[in-house]
Amino acid sequence: MGPNLPTFYEEPVHVVKGDGVWLWDAEGRKYLDCYNNVPHVGHCNPRVVEAIQRQAATLNTHTRYLHDGILDYIEALTATMDASLNTAILTCTGSEANDIALRMAEAVTGKRGIIATDATYHGNTALVSQLGTSNAPGVGFGLGQYFRFVEAPDSYRAPDPDGTIFAARVAAQIAALKADGTGFAALLICPYFLNEGFPDHPDGWLGPVARVVRDAGGLLICDEVQSGFGRTGTHMWAHQKMGVVPDIMTLGKPMANGHPVGGVVADRDLVSAFRDGYRYFNTFGGNPVSCAAAMAVLQEIADRDLVAHAKRVGDHARARLNALAARHEVIGDVRGSGLIFGAEMVLDRDSKAPATGFTDRVINAMRHRGIIHSKLGRYMNTLKIRPPMPFSVENADLLFDTLDQVLTETPVAP
Amino acid sequence: MGPNLPTFYEEPVHVVKGDGVWLWDAEGRKYLDCYNNVPHVGHCNPRVVEAIQRQAATLNTHTRYLHDGILDYIEALTATMDASLNTAILTCTGSEANDIALRMAEAVTGKRGIIATDATYHGNTALVSQLGTSNAPGVGFGLGQYFRFVEAPDSYRAPDPDGTIFAARVAAQIAALKADGTGFAALLICPYFLNEGFPDHPDGWLGPVARVVRDAGGLLICDEVQSGFGRTGTHMWAHQKMGVVPDIMTLGKPMANGHPVGGVVADRDLVSAFRDGYRYFNTFGGNPVSCAAAMAVLQEIADRDLVAHAKRVGDHARARLNALAARHEVIGDVRGSGLIFGAEMVLDRDSKAPATGFTDRVINAMRHRGIIHSKLGRYMNTLKIRPPMPFSVENADLLFDTLDQVLTETPVAP
Repeated sequence: MGPNLPTFYEEPVHVVKGDGVWLWDAEGRKYLDCYNNVPHVGHCNPRVVEAIQRQAATLNTHTRYLHDGILDYIEALTATMDASLNTAILTCTGSEANDIALRMAEAVTGKRGIIATDATYHGNTALVSQLGTSNAPGVGFGLGQYFRFVEAPDSYRAPDPDGTIFAARVAAQIAALKADGTGFAALLICPYFLNEGFPDHPDGWLGPVARVVRDAGGLLICDEVQSGFGRTGTHMWAHQKMGVVPDIMTLGKPMANGHPVGGVVADRDLVSAFRDGYRYFNTFGGNPVSCAAAMAVLQEIADRDLVAHAKRVGDHARARLNALAARHEVIGDVRGSGLIFGAEMVLDRDSKAPATGFTDRVINAMRHRGIIHSKLGRYMNTLKIRPPMPFSVENADLLFDTLDQVLTETPVAP
Repeated sequence: MGPNLPTFYEEPVHVVKGDGVWLWDAEGRKYLDCYNNVPHVGHCNPRVVEAIQRQAATLNTHTRYLHDGILDYIEALTATMDASLNTAILTCTGSEANDIALRMAEAVTGKRGIIATDATYHGNTALVSQLGTSNAPGVGFGLGQYFRFVEAPDSYRAPDPDGTIFAARVAAQIAALKADGTGFAALLICPYFLNEGFPDHPDGWLGPVARVVRDAGGLLICDEVQSGFGRTGTHMWAHQKMGVVPDIMTLGKPMANGHPVGGVVADRDLVSAFRDGYRYFNTFGGNPVSCAAAMAVLQEIADRDLVAHAKRVGDHARARLNALAARHEVIGDVRGSGLIFGAEMVLDRDSKAPATGFTDRVINAMRHRGIIHSKLGRYMNTLKIRPPMPFSVENADLLFDTLDQVLTETPVAP
């Protein structure tokens, strides 16, 4: 597989089995999974597994033949959205979805300038990997020239309660793109800014930046790979929570519970403009097994009322985190919505100096006590807790009882 | 799904079930599948289905945790290749694989000039879609500037028996890339030129072009998405048949029988150079279910001796095609190896004028008689027969008995 492979933890976990919110390693040790969003409706969810098993044994071809599964799925998916989000292209990954979205923006605007935040990630193709800042200089076929980054929102250190500061930052980059002749095509963001540390913003916070984008003739692309499918507990899609309707929405990871499915949703005219530019076909995208798995996920979310469940458990979790914050000075800020939540760790509440090394030690200590989660944010000092959606109040209590012990036992140090 | 969706046939087939080399439509009509290479070891192959069913019910996470499946698979895969092809990155699609291969070439050579043939296709990302010539002008973030095309080989109309003409064409484009300051990074080809109409070349034919590429400091990338996994009947990989070892090999469609799996294989140093340039991670790539499906395909090929089987059935098929050519003047040329074979249709054997419209009518007539295949090549007048690997001598006889009738009944006209 080559060197420099990313793995989790100082001692990576060797997993062999999953069930609901639980994982088991090769020694039979059980872990509470408070991290993985790909198995959205639970590891080895019986309905999804059954759908994959049945369809894989019946037929798995591609969309050059007709098959009802893809049409039924796109109808069910787009029924959860604004009427303008009515047409979809199914892919195998969120990266492929964002790669299409950026080309859609170019095809419609005739411009190439793309804006993202400086602490994000949107995928791994040559084009899409430019949306992050981790590539080495000089690689990427010169695509870097079209990308500009704005400082990510940070509700803890630099509050922007109504979103106007963020909107002004984007406006400045739009002006710079216009001034240098590149022109402005699109702003691409996760509407709940999960990679940026899910800053605490009121509902409707994206309104000002959406107006700036539209006034400049650009498109708003919302990457709902992490924030969608009810993760935030209050809405099926985080853009609804944040008060905007994107021109293009992209989907990935949780869409089919780990089966490789992604997608792009937009207005029919936008999809047409893209298809006029490219004779796009995706061999595996939207194949019968992929659609069966994705449909089972949608059905599980609806039948088990998982969006409301995420809100109920998330509210309990944040209450427990706030109670921990009253006892542990190292917790500087508690944030989140639904089943994405966490706490920022600081060496000192006044200076807000990030406790990055401490956070890493906490995560590794939790792993050795059978609790799996991670960290994120600009300073990598924010606990990232983003479990499968069936995560329960009991699971949250086990997580925070254990975290309480680990925070008590781990010396606070940089 | 939007307009301009590619489908097959004037009346697309609505398939609902597959088994081995057979497909069924919604009215219960049975079709002999002489076209689909994605279900490489047969539609709904029991071993692959069982592997997917078992692993989907056990665990499906990602490679940030350790899992034996991906290591076992990469070892088994690379054991079929030259020792220099020892390291692999697993993806979800062939497009993702080629997207990595091109960036690998840029990372290693420091150059961006890519050469391909003018009648090919290598995938659908922003970068990789530049390898075809079907994009509208002005789209693709300016990437077109790095791509140059050489006339595809054509053994029927412009013989090049030892490959030196093709090598000279590539040399000319390398010189042009160097002259305009772009520099030369890689030649990317299907080693059996399937999209170009699988021209009839002797084994070892790629030797001269490989020397030209290496002498110029570039890499040879072989896209084995269509030509690999024993399709040609004489070798597991078509580059072995054509007498070269590529620097990078890419894989896709048949790799896991329709489950979304692709891959890049190269020397460890090349993979390292890529990973130094990009912090690459693919959420679904190489996940436990994908690896279980891909491993089952490799095992089926070995246990059922499908490479030798492809040679035996392919030899029979070409003999039958040659017999048809003796009776139908419209067949201008018979070509192929193993289970990729076909015939070029011409209005006149002297002028070799392509019978493009006729070919289309034949394919639609065959579809109405329950035989599924397609066409390809520069003039879209070559029957493309590329069935699942378990395709038998009996299946071939049904195909050619039916083709004989259709060729007899269809008036030869442009």
